[in-house]
Amino acid sequence: MKMTTASRLAFLVLFTACVTPTVSAKPPNIIIIFADDLGYGDLSCFGHPTIRTPHLDRMAVEGMRLTQFYSAASVCTPSRAALMTGRLPIRSGMCSNKRRVLFPNSPGGLPPEEITLAEALKTKGYATACVGKWHLGHLPQHLPTRHGFDDYYGIPYSNDMKPCPVLRNETQLEEPAVQETLTRRYTDEAIGFIKKNRDKPFFLYMPHSFPHVPLFASKQFLGTSRRGLYGDVVEELDWSVGRITHTLRELGLAENTLVFFTSDNGPWLPRNLRGGSAGLLRGGKGSTWEGGMREPSLAWWPGTIPAGSISSELGSTMDLLPTCLKLAGVDVPSDRVIDGKDFGPVLRGTGKSERELLFYYRGTRLMAVRKGPWKAHLMTWAGYGQREPTRHDPPLLFHLEHDPSEAHDAAKDHPEVIDEIRAAVEQHRAELVPGDDQLSAKFPES
Amino acid sequence: MKMTTASRLAFLVLFTACVTPTVSAKPPNIIIIFADDLGYGDLSCFGHPTIRTPHLDRMAVEGMRLTQFYSAASVCTPSRAALMTGRLPIRSGMCSNKRRVLFPNSPGGLPPEEITLAEALKTKGYATACVGKWHLGHLPQHLPTRHGFDDYYGIPYSNDMKPCPVLRNETQLEEPAVQETLTRRYTDEAIGFIKKNRDKPFFLYMPHSFPHVPLFASKQFLGTSRRGLYGDVVEELDWSVGRITHTLRELGLAENTLVFFTSDNGPWLPRNLRGGSAGLLRGGKGSTWEGGMREPSLAWWPGTIPAGSISSELGSTMDLLPTCLKLAGVDVPSDRVIDGKDFGPVLRGTGKSERELLFYYRGTRLMAVRKGPWKAHLMTWAGYGQREPTRHDPPLLFHLEHDPSEAHDAAKDHPEVIDEIRAAVEQHRAELVPGDDQLSAKFPES
Repeated sequence: MKMTTASRLAFLVLFTACVTPTVSAKPPNIIIIFADDLGYGDLSCFGHPTIRTPHLDRMAVEGMRLTQFYSAASVCTPSRAALMTGRLPIRSGMCSNKRRVLFPNSPGGLPPEEITLAEALKTKGYATACVGKWHLGHLPQHLPTRHGFDDYYGIPYSNDMKPCPVLRNETQLEEPAVQETLTRRYTDEAIGFIKKNRDKPFFLYMPHSFPHVPLFASKQFLGTSRRGLYGDVVEELDWSVGRITHTLRELGLAENTLVFFTSDNGPWLPRNLRGGSAGLLRGGKGSTWEGGMREPSLAWWPGTIPAGSISSELGSTMDLLPTCLKLAGVDVPSDRVIDGKDFGPVLRGTGKSERELLFYYRGTRLMAVRKGPWKAHLMTWAGYGQREPTRHDPPLLFHLEHDPSEAHDAAKDHPEVIDEIRAAVEQHRAELVPGDDQLSAKFPES
Repeated sequence: MKMTTASRLAFLVLFTACVTPTVSAKPPNIIIIFADDLGYGDLSCFGHPTIRTPHLDRMAVEGMRLTQFYSAASVCTPSRAALMTGRLPIRSGMCSNKRRVLFPNSPGGLPPEEITLAEALKTKGYATACVGKWHLGHLPQHLPTRHGFDDYYGIPYSNDMKPCPVLRNETQLEEPAVQETLTRRYTDEAIGFIKKNRDKPFFLYMPHSFPHVPLFASKQFLGTSRRGLYGDVVEELDWSVGRITHTLRELGLAENTLVFFTSDNGPWLPRNLRGGSAGLLRGGKGSTWEGGMREPSLAWWPGTIPAGSISSELGSTMDLLPTCLKLAGVDVPSDRVIDGKDFGPVLRGTGKSERELLFYYRGTRLMAVRKGPWKAHLMTWAGYGQREPTRHDPPLLFHLEHDPSEAHDAAKDHPEVIDEIRAAVEQHRAELVPGDDQLSAKFPES
């Protein structure tokens, strides 16, 4: 399934050729705001009692709240790879059982033959920027600038990894990052990009560095939340979102811009009060319980997305690639497996999700599968602190729409559902071609 | 502290005499909608993924969502006694360690010398109705009609207790209740009462019978919720609330009516999927963990309560009595301890809660105390299935605004908070005069 650089370029040219020249309306701008380790229960509009997120709540009132929307992995690197490519991380090799994410001593990164959302949108003339934490490889050849982004500003990996520099494009600006002002600086960068490209279609990918620990807030937010430091940090994120939507309104771009907000994975529970809350969901970051992968998600596009709507349709961050490409009038790559489905009809309120299945991976292990409302756990594994997975035969089975907290195993009562899910697993495994592990390599010790 | 009937009448006359005759504006109508066993996490606007409550969500958008509002007990009878009287149930004797609630073989009920919210409001000319489940005594002398309500329609105790008749005032209409249509009939009764009294000030107390098990929904709702039967039932409750607010709008009464929605206690967890969800809170009905007593609460009064507001101010159902009396221009009884505090400034968005302390009782045992953001558990006890309480010395200590899930005991780090709470407990105990147990008596077997 690997593509040479030449064939990749040919493919991109083909992309461009496919664009129907008679389409004159400017395609919509796309903004994806990606929080880091934010829990399902951490926004006011998802029920947190003492974190105040008025701007995200306003997105919900003016747009759509998504209650069954998932990331494709429960840790950073594979989750981001899936969002960028619309593909399960196992296909690109961006997951591993040896190292769960990329580290500062990892030479690997997103393979160049992967087609990112940014690359695909560029074929249609989109201006593209990545502002925030990348975590898909920090060597120059892996940076956002090599994956379709015109502009990059941010940190290359998690904010708890040393030395955590701040880069602009491929140039280091500071090291270590002054973290107190990161959210604020990301916001200014994002607004600058929007203003600069107001007359073009643009794609802004904004993967925030927080509320991943260590937590930092600017002096404007420090000590202001009833929830303590974690609340300060989330409330500053909320402020940032408000600044973005305000800018769009101010520039008259709101009605031609899709803003999608979600998180890369669930809350980092072992961090105690410095970690977030998955609300009523079980588990958190690192696990394939719902709390690890179901994300607090919002979609906003005034005039297109029905105001004040709530959707429980099944969605995945992998769906954003085909959804956005369709909006932009770009064909979805046909030379490779794309796991994402067009989520546009759900966002418009005109149709149901095409997604029937959801695969919960941890590294390269298929841990659980959701089919419709049912989820079967082949294995379970605490996010942190458990040495080996627990295997389940028969699988644990939960009806997630009746039992979102995964508290009542229904395996005995529904063997037919387990049979269906086993068949889906077999088919998935038979068709799957895993990519080469990009995560486990290390630099030689020197 | 007991009052004779004569002194009580004198007191009511005194109430009337106190009314300032120059106040000409009609005092506001008051509607309290009280769900039964609804969990903190069971409404869309409190984060449930698959229960849809558009009418309650609209109340939130047009009014106030309260995230730290409590019932005064974790089971039905004492919780209702507290709401009606503004007093801890231990003062009226409406709690017991022998029987947790009133049963069909209980001769007891709310003592006649207690002053209910309905009685107090009647002194100001309010028309009063109770529509729903009473559960403060089912003998004629204990019924709502003997406690200040002009009209009563509903069941006298929980819907899982035999024979569960439906009464109108003191007359039995059917037995057992046809439960499928209860919510619908309550709604019609409530609307009839509102229409009949549109020109008077009125007080409608609407304690729904659901989602207490056994669950019943009308044919219009049965099988319609993604959450299953529990969802059908909650969504019918939501529909009912929408019918009430719609009627108020239609009659031009919305801007002169406070509608307050809350629940008597948390979800009945041992009922599995027939019970609800406390969301991110720990525990449920029957326990003094947050899930047992913190309720999904909404206040709506267009033009007076700030639209789209969220308050985390500390409140209790006991606060509704002084709050409503103040709105009606009625003095709060001064011959007895009233535990409620005026919550009006919070509802108007003009001030903070006067409440600093919250006592969590189970029967006559003081289990836990909240002081500001801190909660100390002197004892913990699973809602059901645990024989004896677990005593904690030092108490377990949680910072509820940082740690709403009561997951991280902070007792070691904050001995000074424990000292403060111990002092508050001592003072409370020294001043407390418990009422005679009204719950544990039974009819002779004969």
